[in-house]
Amino acid sequence: MQAILSVNELNDLADREFPQIRGRFFVTEVTDDGVVMRMPVAERDMRPGGTVSGPSMFALADCAFYMALLAMIGPRTLSVTTNCCIDFLRKPAPGDLVGTARILKLGKRLCVGDVLIHSDAHPEEGPVARASVTYAIAPEKVQAQP
Amino acid sequence: MQAILSVNELNDLADREFPQIRGRFFVTEVTDDGVVMRMPVAERDMRPGGTVSGPSMFALADCAFYMALLAMIGPRTLSVTTNCCIDFLRKPAPGDLVGTARILKLGKRLCVGDVLIHSDAHPEEGPVARASVTYAIAPEKVQAQP
Amino acid sequence: MQAILSVNELNDLADREFPQIRGRFFVTEVTDDGVVMRMPVAERDMRPGGTVSGPSMFALADCAFYMALLAMIGPRTLSVTTNCCIDFLRKPAPGDLVGTARILKLGKRLCVGDVLIHSDAHPEEGPVARASVTYAIAPEKVQAQP
Amino acid sequence: MQAILSVNELNDLADREFPQIRGRFFVTEVTDDGVVMRMPVAERDMRPGGTVSGPSMFALADCAFYMALLAMIGPRTLSVTTNCCIDFLRKPAPGDLVGTARILKLGKRLCVGDVLIHSDAHPEEGPVARASVTYAIAPEKVQAQP
Repeated sequence: MQAILSVNELNDLADREFPQIRGRFFVTEVTDDGVVMRMPVAERDMRPGGTVSGPSMFALADCAFYMALLAMIGPRTLSVTTNCCIDFLRKPAPGDLVGTARILKLGKRLCVGDVLIHSDAHPEEGPVARASVTYAIAPEKVQAQP
Repeated sequence: MQAILSVNELNDLADREFPQIRGRFFVTEVTDDGVVMRMPVAERDMRPGGTVSGPSMFALADCAFYMALLAMIGPRTLSVTTNCCIDFLRKPAPGDLVGTARILKLGKRLCVGDVLIHSDAHPEEGPVARASVTYAIAPEKVQAQP
Repeated sequence: MQAILSVNELNDLADREFPQIRGRFFVTEVTDDGVVMRMPVAERDMRPGGTVSGPSMFALADCAFYMALLAMIGPRTLSVTTNCCIDFLRKPAPGDLVGTARILKLGKRLCVGDVLIHSDAHPEEGPVARASVTYAIAPEKVQAQP
Repeated sequence: MQAILSVNELNDLADREFPQIRGRFFVTEVTDDGVVMRMPVAERDMRPGGTVSGPSMFALADCAFYMALLAMIGPRTLSVTTNCCIDFLRKPAPGDLVGTARILKLGKRLCVGDVLIHSDAHPEEGPVARASVTYAIAPEKVQAQP
Protein backbone atom coordinates (compact mmCIF):
# COMPACT_ATOMS: atom_id res chain seq x y z
CA MET A 1 0.00 0.00 0.00
CA GLN A 2 1.44 3.32 -1.08
CA ALA A 3 -0.22 6.66 -1.72
CA ILE A 4 -0.47 7.75 -5.36
CA LEU A 5 -2.14 11.12 -4.70
CA SER A 6 -0.60 14.02 -2.77
CA VAL A 7 -2.19 16.37 -0.25
CA ASN A 8 -2.77 18.99 -2.94
CA GLU A 9 -4.18 16.51 -5.42
CA LEU A 10 -6.63 15.20 -2.83
CA ASN A 11 -7.81 18.66 -1.83
CA ASP A 12 -8.19 19.69 -5.48
CA LEU A 13 -10.18 16.53 -6.17
CA ALA A 14 -12.53 17.18 -3.25
CA ASP A 15 -13.00 20.77 -4.35
CA ARG A 16 -13.89 19.72 -7.87
CA GLU A 17 -16.09 16.73 -7.15
CA PHE A 18 -17.71 17.66 -3.84
CA PRO A 19 -18.49 21.36 -3.81
CA GLN A 20 -20.86 20.70 -0.87
CA ILE A 21 -17.96 20.02 1.48
CA ARG A 22 -15.75 22.86 0.25
CA GLY A 23 -14.23 24.68 3.17
CA ARG A 24 -15.36 22.07 5.67
CA PHE A 25 -12.54 19.51 5.48
CA PHE A 26 -8.87 19.67 4.45
CA VAL A 27 -6.32 16.92 4.02
CA THR A 28 -3.17 18.07 5.83
CA GLU A 29 -1.00 14.98 5.53
CA VAL A 30 -0.74 11.73 3.59
CA THR A 31 0.70 8.92 5.72
CA ASP A 32 1.91 5.36 5.04
CA ASP A 33 -1.57 3.94 5.53
CA GLY A 34 -3.98 6.87 5.26
CA VAL A 35 -4.40 10.61 5.71
CA VAL A 36 -4.81 13.27 8.37
CA MET A 37 -7.78 15.62 7.87
CA ARG A 38 -8.72 18.85 9.61
CA MET A 39 -12.26 20.16 10.17
CA PRO A 40 -12.50 23.84 11.13
CA VAL A 41 -15.57 23.78 13.36
CA ALA A 42 -18.32 26.21 12.30
CA GLU A 43 -21.52 27.44 13.94
CA ARG A 44 -23.63 24.79 12.23
CA ASP A 45 -21.47 22.04 13.76
CA MET A 46 -22.18 23.14 17.33
CA ARG A 47 -24.68 21.85 19.87
CA PRO A 48 -26.06 23.49 23.05
CA GLY A 49 -23.31 23.53 25.68
CA GLY A 50 -20.60 24.47 23.18
CA THR A 51 -19.84 20.98 21.96
CA VAL A 52 -19.50 19.62 18.41
CA SER A 53 -22.44 17.60 17.06
CA GLY A 54 -22.26 13.86 16.47
CA PRO A 55 -23.24 14.10 12.79
CA SER A 56 -20.38 16.57 12.20
CA MET A 57 -17.89 14.14 13.72
CA PHE A 58 -19.40 11.35 11.64
CA ALA A 59 -18.97 13.49 8.51
CA LEU A 60 -15.30 14.07 9.38
CA ALA A 61 -14.68 10.34 9.93
CA ASP A 62 -16.45 9.37 6.71
CA CYS A 63 -14.69 12.02 4.62
CA ALA A 64 -11.25 11.31 6.09
CA PHE A 65 -11.54 7.62 5.31
CA TYR A 66 -12.79 8.36 1.80
CA MET A 67 -9.72 10.52 1.19
CA ALA A 68 -7.45 7.82 2.63
CA LEU A 69 -8.92 5.35 0.14
CA LEU A 70 -8.60 7.71 -2.84
CA ALA A 71 -5.02 8.53 -1.81
CA MET A 72 -4.17 4.85 -2.33
CA ILE A 73 -6.26 3.96 -5.40
CA GLY A 74 -6.70 7.26 -7.24
CA PRO A 75 -9.91 9.13 -8.09
CA ARG A 76 -12.48 6.34 -8.10
CA THR A 77 -14.89 8.79 -6.58
CA LEU A 78 -17.97 6.56 -6.89
CA SER A 79 -16.72 4.40 -4.00
CA VAL A 80 -19.31 4.47 -1.21
CA THR A 81 -19.51 3.85 2.52
CA THR A 82 -21.21 0.56 3.36
CA ASN A 83 -20.74 0.59 7.14
CA CYS A 84 -19.58 3.01 9.80
CA CYS A 85 -19.51 2.36 13.50
CA ILE A 86 -18.63 5.36 15.66
CA ASP A 87 -17.99 5.69 19.42
CA PHE A 88 -18.27 9.13 20.95
CA LEU A 89 -15.75 9.23 23.78
CA ARG A 90 -15.49 12.77 25.14
CA LYS A 91 -17.25 16.07 24.58
CA PRO A 92 -14.95 18.00 22.27
CA ALA A 93 -14.11 21.55 23.30
CA PRO A 94 -14.95 24.22 20.71
CA GLY A 95 -12.17 24.39 18.11
CA ASP A 96 -10.90 22.46 15.11
CA LEU A 97 -11.07 18.68 15.01
CA VAL A 98 -8.38 16.47 13.48
CA GLY A 99 -9.14 13.00 12.07
CA THR A 100 -6.44 10.39 11.46
CA ALA A 101 -7.63 7.72 9.02
CA ARG A 102 -5.75 4.45 8.69
CA ILE A 103 -6.46 1.64 6.24
CA LEU A 104 -6.26 -1.86 7.75
CA LYS A 105 -7.26 -3.77 4.64
CA LEU A 106 -7.33 -2.65 1.05
CA GLY A 107 -9.01 -5.43 -0.93
CA LYS A 108 -10.32 -5.48 -4.47
CA ARG A 109 -13.89 -4.75 -3.47
CA LEU A 110 -13.82 -3.57 0.13
CA CYS A 111 -11.56 -1.23 2.08
CA VAL A 112 -11.69 -1.38 5.88
CA GLY A 113 -10.02 0.77 8.52
CA ASP A 114 -10.54 3.25 11.30
CA VAL A 115 -10.40 6.94 12.16
CA LEU A 116 -9.35 8.54 15.43
CA ILE A 117 -10.64 12.08 16.04
CA HIS A 118 -8.86 14.49 18.39
CA SER A 119 -9.66 18.01 19.46
CA ASP A 120 -6.91 20.25 18.15
CA ALA A 121 -7.25 22.43 21.24
CA HIS A 122 -6.68 19.54 23.66
CA PRO A 123 -4.99 16.60 21.92
CA GLU A 124 -3.55 15.44 25.25
CA GLU A 125 -7.01 14.60 26.56
CA GLY A 126 -7.27 11.59 24.28
CA PRO A 127 -9.53 10.99 21.28
CA VAL A 128 -13.03 12.51 21.22
CA ALA A 129 -14.33 9.84 18.83
CA ARG A 130 -13.28 6.63 17.12
CA ALA A 131 -14.87 5.19 14.00
CA SER A 132 -14.45 2.01 12.02
CA VAL A 133 -15.34 2.39 8.37
CA THR A 134 -15.93 0.10 5.36
CA TYR A 135 -16.04 1.38 1.79
CA ALA A 136 -17.16 -0.51 -1.30
CA ILE A 137 -14.56 0.32 -3.95
CA ALA A 138 -15.91 1.48 -7.31
CA PRO A 139 -14.63 -0.65 -10.21
CA GLU A 140 -12.37 1.31 -12.53
CA LYS A 141 -14.68 0.94 -15.50
CA VAL A 142 -17.82 2.44 -13.94
CA GLN A 143 -16.01 5.61 -12.91
CA ALA A 144 -17.78 8.67 -14.33
CA GLN A 145 -15.96 10.39 -17.14
CA PRO A 146 -15.02 14.06 -16.75
CA MET B 1 -42.40 1.76 28.19
CA GLN B 2 -44.97 4.35 27.22
CA ALA B 3 -44.57 7.71 25.53
CA ILE B 4 -45.12 10.78 27.73
CA LEU B 5 -44.59 13.38 24.98
CA SER B 6 -46.77 13.83 21.89
CA VAL B 7 -45.77 14.54 18.29
CA ASN B 8 -46.39 18.26 18.79
CA GLU B 9 -44.54 18.41 22.08
CA LEU B 10 -41.52 16.70 20.54
CA ASN B 11 -41.43 19.01 17.54
CA ASP B 12 -41.82 22.08 19.76
CA LEU B 13 -39.01 20.84 21.98
CA ALA B 14 -36.69 20.32 19.00
CA ASP B 15 -37.55 23.77 17.66
CA ARG B 16 -36.77 25.40 20.96
CA GLU B 17 -33.64 23.51 21.95
CA PHE B 18 -32.05 22.74 18.59
CA PRO B 19 -32.54 25.67 16.24
CA GLN B 20 -29.78 24.21 14.04
CA ILE B 21 -32.00 21.35 12.94
CA ARG B 22 -35.16 23.43 12.44
CA GLY B 23 -36.83 22.48 9.21
CA ARG B 24 -34.61 19.44 8.68
CA PHE B 25 -36.43 16.78 10.70
CA PHE B 26 -40.05 16.31 11.84
CA VAL B 27 -41.59 13.73 14.12
CA THR B 28 -44.71 12.44 12.37
CA GLU B 29 -45.77 9.66 14.72
CA VAL B 30 -45.16 8.38 18.22
CA THR B 31 -45.34 4.58 18.41
CA ASP B 32 -45.38 2.01 21.21
CA ASP B 33 -41.61 1.83 21.30
CA GLY B 34 -40.34 4.90 19.47
CA VAL B 35 -41.11 7.50 16.81
CA VAL B 36 -41.29 7.96 13.06
CA MET B 37 -39.35 10.94 11.70
CA ARG B 38 -39.33 12.55 8.27
CA MET B 39 -36.37 14.33 6.63
CA PRO B 40 -37.25 16.52 3.63
CA VAL B 41 -34.09 16.14 1.56
CA ALA B 42 -32.44 19.44 0.61
CA GLU B 43 -29.68 20.41 -1.79
CA ARG B 44 -27.01 20.20 0.91
CA ASP B 45 -27.95 16.57 1.61
CA MET B 46 -27.24 15.45 -1.95
CA ARG B 47 -24.19 13.82 -3.48
CA PRO B 48 -23.07 13.54 -7.12
CA GLY B 49 -25.38 11.08 -8.90
CA GLY B 50 -28.50 12.38 -7.19
CA THR B 51 -28.18 10.32 -4.02
CA VAL B 52 -28.46 11.35 -0.37
CA SER B 53 -25.19 11.68 1.57
CA GLY B 54 -24.19 9.25 4.31
CA PRO B 55 -23.79 11.97 6.95
CA SER B 56 -27.35 13.18 6.26
CA MET B 57 -28.71 9.68 6.80
CA PHE B 58 -26.62 9.39 9.96
CA ALA B 59 -28.09 12.68 11.20
CA LEU B 60 -31.60 11.38 10.58
CA ALA B 61 -30.90 8.14 12.47
CA ASP B 62 -29.29 9.97 15.39
CA CYS B 63 -32.04 12.56 15.63
CA ALA B 64 -34.88 10.03 15.30
CA PHE B 65 -33.49 7.91 18.11
CA TYR B 66 -32.96 10.98 20.30
CA MET B 67 -36.62 11.90 19.83
CA ALA B 68 -37.70 8.32 20.57
CA LEU B 69 -35.79 8.51 23.85
CA LEU B 70 -37.21 11.92 24.83
CA ALA B 71 -40.71 10.70 23.93
CA MET B 72 -40.36 8.06 26.65
CA ILE B 73 -38.45 9.96 29.37
CA GLY B 74 -39.35 13.61 28.77
CA PRO B 75 -37.04 16.53 27.97
CA ARG B 76 -33.72 15.36 29.36
CA THR B 77 -32.10 17.02 26.40
CA LEU B 78 -28.52 16.60 27.65
CA SER B 79 -28.64 12.88 26.82
CA VAL B 80 -25.90 12.10 24.28
CA THR B 81 -25.09 9.45 21.68
CA THR B 82 -22.32 7.13 22.79
CA ASN B 83 -22.34 4.73 19.84
CA CYS B 84 -23.91 4.49 16.42
CA CYS B 85 -23.35 1.77 13.90
CA ILE B 86 -24.90 2.36 10.48
CA ASP B 87 -25.18 0.13 7.40
CA PHE B 88 -25.87 1.80 4.07
CA LEU B 89 -27.95 -0.66 2.06
CA ARG B 90 -29.21 1.01 -1.11
CA LYS B 91 -28.71 4.33 -2.87
CA PRO B 92 -31.77 6.36 -1.93
CA ALA B 93 -33.59 8.05 -4.78
CA PRO B 94 -34.00 11.82 -4.45
CA GLY B 95 -36.94 12.60 -2.18
CA ASP B 96 -37.82 12.58 1.50
CA LEU B 97 -36.45 9.96 3.84
CA VAL B 98 -38.41 8.39 6.69
CA GLY B 99 -36.72 6.97 9.80
CA THR B 100 -38.47 4.55 12.16
CA ALA B 101 -36.75 4.46 15.56
CA ARG B 102 -37.49 1.66 18.02
CA ILE B 103 -36.18 1.33 21.56
CA LEU B 104 -35.04 -2.19 22.49
CA LYS B 105 -33.84 -1.38 25.99
CA LEU B 106 -34.53 1.63 28.15
CA GLY B 107 -32.28 1.34 31.18
CA LYS B 108 -31.44 3.87 33.86
CA ARG B 109 -28.22 4.98 32.22
CA LEU B 110 -28.27 3.64 28.67
CA CYS B 111 -30.92 3.43 25.99
CA VAL B 112 -30.32 1.07 23.05
CA GLY B 113 -32.28 0.50 19.88
CA ASP B 114 -32.29 0.81 16.13
CA VAL B 115 -33.54 2.92 13.24
CA LEU B 116 -34.69 1.76 9.81
CA ILE B 117 -34.56 4.40 7.06
CA HIS B 118 -36.75 4.15 3.94
CA SER B 119 -37.04 6.32 0.89
CA ASP B 120 -40.50 7.85 0.89
CA ALA B 121 -40.57 7.67 -2.90
CA HIS B 122 -39.85 3.93 -3.02
CA PRO B 123 -40.66 2.28 0.31
CA GLU B 124 -41.26 -1.04 -1.44
CA GLU B 125 -37.56 -1.30 -2.36
CA GLY B 126 -36.60 -2.02 1.22
CA PRO B 127 -34.63 0.09 3.69
CA VAL B 128 -31.86 2.38 2.43
CA ALA B 129 -30.06 2.31 5.77
CA ARG B 130 -30.17 0.65 9.18
CA ALA B 131 -28.57 2.00 12.33
CA SER B 132 -28.14 0.74 15.86
CA VAL B 133 -27.84 3.51 18.42
CA THR B 134 -26.89 3.84 22.10
CA TYR B 135 -27.61 6.97 24.14
CA ALA B 136 -26.31 7.81 27.60
CA ILE B 137 -29.32 9.17 29.46
CA ALA B 138 -28.82 12.48 31.26
CA PRO B 139 -29.65 12.27 34.98
CA GLU B 140 -32.69 14.34 35.88
CA LYS B 141 -30.76 16.64 38.17
CA VAL B 142 -28.12 17.84 35.69
CA GLN B 143 -30.73 18.89 33.16
CA ALA B 144 -30.27 22.56 32.21
CA GLN B 145 -32.89 24.93 33.57
CA PRO B 146 -34.93 27.02 31.15
CA MET C 1 -36.45 -12.89 -1.74
CA GLN C 2 -37.81 -16.34 -1.12
CA ALA C 3 -36.34 -19.31 0.74
CA ILE C 4 -35.17 -22.24 -1.40
CA LEU C 5 -34.08 -24.47 1.50
CA SER C 6 -36.36 -25.90 4.18
CA VAL C 7 -35.78 -26.27 7.92
CA ASN C 8 -34.68 -29.88 7.47
CA GLU C 9 -32.40 -29.12 4.54
CA LEU C 10 -30.70 -26.35 6.52
CA ASN C 11 -30.16 -28.53 9.59
CA ASP C 12 -28.83 -31.39 7.44
CA LEU C 13 -26.48 -29.00 5.68
CA ALA C 14 -25.13 -27.68 8.99
CA ASP C 15 -24.67 -31.21 10.30
CA ARG C 16 -22.73 -32.24 7.23
CA GLU C 17 -20.58 -29.17 6.73
CA PHE C 18 -20.06 -27.93 10.28
CA PRO C 19 -19.65 -30.89 12.62
CA GLN C 20 -18.19 -28.48 15.20
CA ILE C 21 -21.55 -26.85 15.80
CA ARG C 22 -23.57 -30.08 15.83
CA GLY C 23 -26.01 -30.06 18.69
CA ARG C 24 -25.40 -26.40 19.47
CA PHE C 25 -27.80 -24.67 17.06
CA PHE C 26 -31.02 -25.72 15.31
CA VAL C 27 -33.09 -23.94 12.71
CA THR C 28 -36.72 -24.14 13.87
CA GLU C 29 -38.42 -21.97 11.26
CA VAL C 30 -37.82 -20.42 7.86
CA THR C 31 -39.54 -17.05 7.52
CA ASP C 32 -40.18 -14.63 4.65
CA ASP C 33 -36.88 -12.87 5.20
CA GLY C 34 -34.78 -15.22 7.31
CA VAL C 35 -34.83 -17.98 9.92
CA VAL C 36 -35.43 -18.62 13.60
CA MET C 37 -32.69 -20.56 15.38
CA ARG C 38 -32.57 -22.15 18.82
CA MET C 39 -29.47 -22.59 21.00
CA PRO C 40 -29.84 -25.05 23.88
CA VAL C 41 -27.54 -23.46 26.45
CA ALA C 42 -24.83 -25.78 27.79
CA GLU C 43 -22.36 -25.59 30.65
CA ARG C 44 -19.62 -24.18 28.43
CA ASP C 45 -21.87 -21.26 27.44
CA MET C 46 -22.32 -20.09 31.03
CA ARG C 47 -20.54 -17.37 33.00
CA PRO C 48 -20.30 -16.81 36.75
CA GLY C 49 -23.66 -15.61 38.04
CA GLY C 50 -25.62 -18.03 35.87
CA THR C 51 -25.67 -15.92 32.73
CA VAL C 52 -24.85 -16.82 29.13
CA SER C 53 -21.48 -15.67 27.79
CA GLY C 54 -21.13 -12.95 25.18
CA PRO C 55 -19.18 -15.15 22.74
CA SER C 56 -21.96 -17.76 22.86
CA MET C 57 -24.55 -15.14 21.97
CA PHE C 58 -22.27 -13.89 19.20
CA ALA C 59 -22.00 -17.44 17.87
CA LEU C 60 -25.78 -17.75 17.80
CA ALA C 61 -26.19 -14.45 15.95
CA ASP C 62 -23.50 -15.31 13.43
CA CYS C 63 -24.81 -18.81 12.81
CA ALA C 64 -28.47 -17.74 12.55
CA PHE C 65 -27.64 -15.12 9.95
CA TYR C 66 -25.52 -17.58 8.01
CA MET C 67 -28.46 -19.98 7.88
CA ALA C 68 -30.79 -17.15 6.82
CA LEU C 69 -28.46 -16.40 3.92
CA LEU C 70 -28.14 -20.04 2.85
CA ALA C 71 -31.91 -20.45 3.09
CA MET C 72 -32.23 -17.80 0.37
CA ILE C 73 -29.29 -18.62 -1.92
CA GLY C 74 -28.65 -22.33 -1.35
CA PRO C 75 -25.52 -24.04 -0.05
CA ARG C 76 -22.81 -21.53 -0.89
CA THR C 77 -21.16 -22.46 2.36
CA LEU C 78 -17.94 -20.54 1.73
CA SER C 79 -19.74 -17.25 2.40
CA VAL C 80 -18.07 -15.48 5.33
CA THR C 81 -18.91 -12.85 7.93
CA THR C 82 -17.22 -9.54 7.21
CA ASN C 83 -18.75 -7.47 10.02
CA CYS C 84 -20.83 -8.06 13.11
CA CYS C 85 -21.89 -5.45 15.59
CA ILE C 86 -23.61 -6.76 18.72
CA ASP C 87 -25.32 -4.98 21.62
CA PHE C 88 -25.81 -6.91 24.84
CA LEU C 89 -29.03 -5.63 26.38
CA ARG C 90 -29.99 -7.79 29.35
CA LYS C 91 -28.46 -10.66 31.27
CA PRO C 92 -30.17 -13.75 29.91
CA ALA C 93 -31.56 -16.17 32.47
CA PRO C 94 -30.29 -19.74 32.21
CA GLY C 95 -32.20 -21.60 29.50
CA ASP C 96 -32.37 -21.81 25.73
CA LEU C 97 -31.85 -18.75 23.56
CA VAL C 98 -33.78 -18.05 20.38
CA GLY C 99 -32.35 -15.93 17.56
CA THR C 100 -34.50 -14.37 14.83
CA ALA C 101 -32.44 -13.44 11.77
CA ARG C 102 -33.85 -11.13 9.13
CA ILE C 103 -32.21 -10.13 5.85
CA LEU C 104 -32.52 -6.44 5.00
CA LYS C 105 -30.51 -6.53 1.80
CA LEU C 106 -29.52 -9.46 -0.34
CA GLY C 107 -27.11 -8.14 -2.96
CA LYS C 108 -24.84 -9.97 -5.36
CA ARG C 109 -21.79 -9.71 -3.16
CA LEU C 110 -22.99 -8.64 0.28
CA CYS C 111 -25.90 -9.67 2.46
CA VAL C 112 -26.86 -7.38 5.37
CA GLY C 113 -29.38 -7.81 8.14
CA ASP C 114 -29.91 -8.23 11.84
CA VAL C 115 -30.61 -10.78 14.54
CA LEU C 116 -32.70 -10.35 17.70
CA ILE C 117 -31.96 -12.78 20.52
CA HIS C 118 -34.54 -13.60 23.20
CA SER C 119 -34.41 -15.81 26.24
CA ASP C 120 -36.85 -18.65 25.70
CA ALA C 121 -37.62 -18.68 29.42
CA HIS C 122 -38.58 -14.99 29.51
CA PRO C 123 -39.42 -13.69 26.02
CA GLU C 124 -41.64 -11.00 27.52
CA GLU C 125 -38.63 -9.25 29.07
CA GLY C 126 -37.46 -8.04 25.68
CA PRO C 127 -34.40 -9.05 23.66
CA VAL C 128 -31.19 -10.00 25.46
CA ALA C 129 -29.03 -9.05 22.47
CA ARG C 130 -29.26 -7.49 19.04
CA ALA C 131 -26.72 -7.90 16.26
CA SER C 132 -26.26 -6.45 12.81
CA VAL C 133 -24.41 -8.74 10.45
CA THR C 134 -22.79 -8.51 7.00
CA TYR C 135 -21.77 -11.55 4.99
CA ALA C 136 -19.66 -11.65 1.84
CA ILE C 137 -21.46 -14.07 -0.47
CA ALA C 138 -19.33 -16.79 -2.04
CA PRO C 139 -19.52 -16.79 -5.86
CA GLU C 140 -21.22 -19.92 -7.20
CA LYS C 141 -18.14 -21.10 -9.05
CA VAL C 142 -15.71 -21.15 -6.11
CA GLN C 143 -18.02 -23.31 -4.04
CA ALA C 144 -16.25 -26.48 -2.93
CA GLN C 145 -17.41 -29.64 -4.63
CA PRO C 146 -18.74 -32.50 -2.52
CA MET D 1 -4.16 5.40 33.16
CA GLN D 2 -1.67 2.96 34.62
CA ALA D 3 -1.87 -0.79 35.09
CA ILE D 4 -2.26 -2.02 38.68
CA LEU D 5 -2.22 -5.75 37.87
CA SER D 6 0.71 -7.67 36.34
CA VAL D 7 0.70 -10.37 33.67
CA ASN D 8 0.81 -13.10 36.33
CA GLU D 9 -1.90 -11.53 38.44
CA LEU D 10 -4.19 -11.27 35.41
CA ASN D 11 -3.63 -14.88 34.36
CA ASP D 12 -4.17 -16.10 37.93
CA LEU D 13 -7.37 -14.08 38.14
CA ALA D 14 -8.69 -15.56 34.89
CA ASP D 15 -7.81 -19.05 36.02
CA ARG D 16 -9.65 -18.59 39.31
CA GLU D 17 -12.73 -16.76 38.10
CA PHE D 18 -13.21 -18.17 34.61
CA PRO D 19 -12.36 -21.85 34.58
CA GLN D 20 -14.25 -22.12 31.26
CA ILE D 21 -11.53 -20.20 29.43
CA ARG D 22 -8.59 -21.92 31.12
CA GLY D 23 -6.00 -22.83 28.55
CA ARG D 24 -7.68 -20.83 25.80
CA PHE D 25 -6.25 -17.34 26.39
CA PHE D 26 -3.09 -15.98 28.03
CA VAL D 27 -2.03 -12.44 28.79
CA THR D 28 1.56 -12.08 27.59
CA GLU D 29 2.16 -8.38 28.13
CA VAL D 30 0.68 -5.41 29.97
CA THR D 31 1.15 -2.18 28.01
CA ASP D 32 0.64 1.53 28.74
CA ASP D 33 -2.98 1.38 27.63
CA GLY D 34 -3.95 -2.29 27.60
CA VAL D 35 -2.69 -5.84 27.22
CA VAL D 36 -1.48 -8.33 24.62
CA MET D 37 -3.22 -11.71 24.69
CA ARG D 38 -2.41 -14.99 22.93
CA MET D 39 -4.92 -17.64 21.83
CA PRO D 40 -3.45 -21.05 20.99
CA VAL D 41 -5.83 -22.19 18.27
CA ALA D 42 -7.44 -25.58 18.93
CA GLU D 43 -9.50 -27.95 16.83
CA ARG D 44 -12.79 -26.50 18.05
CA ASP D 45 -11.75 -23.04 16.80
CA MET D 46 -11.31 -24.21 13.21
CA ARG D 47 -13.64 -24.00 10.22
CA PRO D 48 -13.65 -25.91 6.93
CA GLY D 49 -10.73 -24.72 4.82
CA GLY D 50 -8.35 -24.54 7.77
CA THR D 51 -9.34 -21.10 8.97
CA VAL D 52 -10.22 -19.85 12.47
CA SER D 53 -13.91 -19.31 13.22
CA GLY D 54 -15.41 -15.86 13.69
CA PRO D 55 -16.80 -16.64 17.15
CA SER D 56 -13.33 -17.71 18.32
CA MET D 57 -11.87 -14.40 17.16
CA PHE D 58 -14.74 -12.59 18.85
CA ALA D 59 -13.99 -14.45 22.08
CA LEU D 60 -10.33 -13.41 21.87
CA ALA D 61 -11.25 -9.75 21.30
CA ASP D 62 -13.77 -9.73 24.12
CA CYS D 63 -11.46 -11.49 26.57
CA ALA D 64 -8.43 -9.34 25.70
CA PHE D 65 -10.36 -6.15 26.28
CA TYR D 66 -11.76 -7.47 29.55
CA MET D 67 -8.23 -8.17 30.75
CA ALA D 68 -7.10 -4.71 29.62
CA LEU D 69 -9.87 -3.19 31.72
CA LEU D 70 -9.10 -5.30 34.79
CA ALA D 71 -5.39 -4.50 34.43
CA MET D 72 -6.25 -0.82 34.94
CA ILE D 73 -9.02 -1.01 37.58
CA GLY D 74 -8.33 -4.27 39.45
CA PRO D 75 -10.57 -7.33 39.80
CA ARG D 76 -14.02 -5.89 39.27
CA THR D 77 -14.89 -9.06 37.45
CA LEU D 78 -18.62 -8.34 37.16
CA SER D 79 -17.92 -5.75 34.45
CA VAL D 80 -19.74 -6.79 31.26
CA THR D 81 -19.53 -6.16 27.53
CA THR D 82 -22.28 -3.86 26.30
CA ASN D 83 -21.21 -3.55 22.65
CA CYS D 84 -18.71 -5.15 20.32
CA CYS D 85 -18.28 -4.40 16.66
CA ILE D 86 -15.88 -6.65 14.79
CA ASP D 87 -14.53 -6.55 11.23
CA PHE D 88 -13.09 -9.74 9.79
CA LEU D 89 -10.32 -8.67 7.43
CA ARG D 90 -8.37 -11.71 6.27
CA LYS D 91 -8.64 -15.47 6.64
CA PRO D 92 -6.17 -16.34 9.37
CA ALA D 93 -3.78 -19.17 8.66
CA PRO D 94 -3.84 -22.05 11.15
CA GLY D 95 -1.74 -21.13 14.19
CA ASP D 96 -1.92 -18.96 17.28
CA LEU D 97 -3.67 -15.61 17.22
CA VAL D 98 -2.45 -12.53 19.10
CA GLY D 99 -4.81 -9.76 20.23
CA THR D 100 -3.61 -6.29 21.20
CA ALA D 101 -6.20 -4.44 23.29
CA ARG D 102 -5.96 -0.70 23.81
CA ILE D 103 -8.19 1.44 26.00
CA LEU D 104 -9.21 4.75 24.42
CA LYS D 105 -11.43 5.97 27.25
CA LEU D 106 -11.65 4.77 30.82
CA GLY D 107 -14.64 6.53 32.36
CA LYS D 108 -16.42 5.88 35.62
CA ARG D 109 -19.13 3.74 34.07
CA LEU D 110 -17.97 2.86 30.58
CA CYS D 111 -14.64 1.76 29.13
CA VAL D 112 -14.18 1.99 25.35
CA GLY D 113 -11.34 0.84 23.12
CA ASP D 114 -10.28 -1.52 20.40
CA VAL D 115 -8.47 -4.77 19.71
CA LEU D 116 -6.30 -5.67 16.72
CA ILE D 117 -5.87 -9.39 16.04
CA HIS D 118 -2.89 -10.74 14.11
CA SER D 119 -1.94 -14.23 13.04
CA ASP D 120 1.23 -15.17 14.90
CA ALA D 121 2.37 -17.16 11.88
CA HIS D 122 2.08 -14.21 9.48
CA PRO D 123 2.04 -10.90 11.36
CA GLU D 124 3.41 -9.11 8.30
CA GLU D 125 0.19 -9.75 6.39
CA GLY D 126 -1.69 -7.22 8.48
CA PRO D 127 -4.45 -7.75 11.03
CA VAL D 128 -6.95 -10.59 10.54
CA ALA D 129 -9.62 -8.81 12.58
CA ARG D 130 -10.33 -5.52 14.32
CA ALA D 131 -12.87 -5.00 17.06
CA SER D 132 -14.17 -2.01 18.98
CA VAL D 133 -15.44 -2.87 22.44
CA THR D 134 -17.42 -1.16 25.21
CA TYR D 135 -17.60 -2.49 28.76
CA ALA D 136 -19.92 -1.36 31.53
CA ILE D 137 -17.69 -1.14 34.61
CA ALA D 138 -18.99 -2.89 37.73
CA PRO D 139 -19.24 -0.53 40.71
CA GLU D 140 -16.77 -1.43 43.46
CA LYS D 141 -19.48 -2.21 45.98
CA VAL D 142 -21.39 -4.84 43.97
CA GLN D 143 -18.27 -6.87 43.36
CA ALA D 144 -18.72 -10.43 44.60
CA GLN D 145 -16.76 -11.30 47.72
CA PRO D 146 -14.23 -14.15 47.61
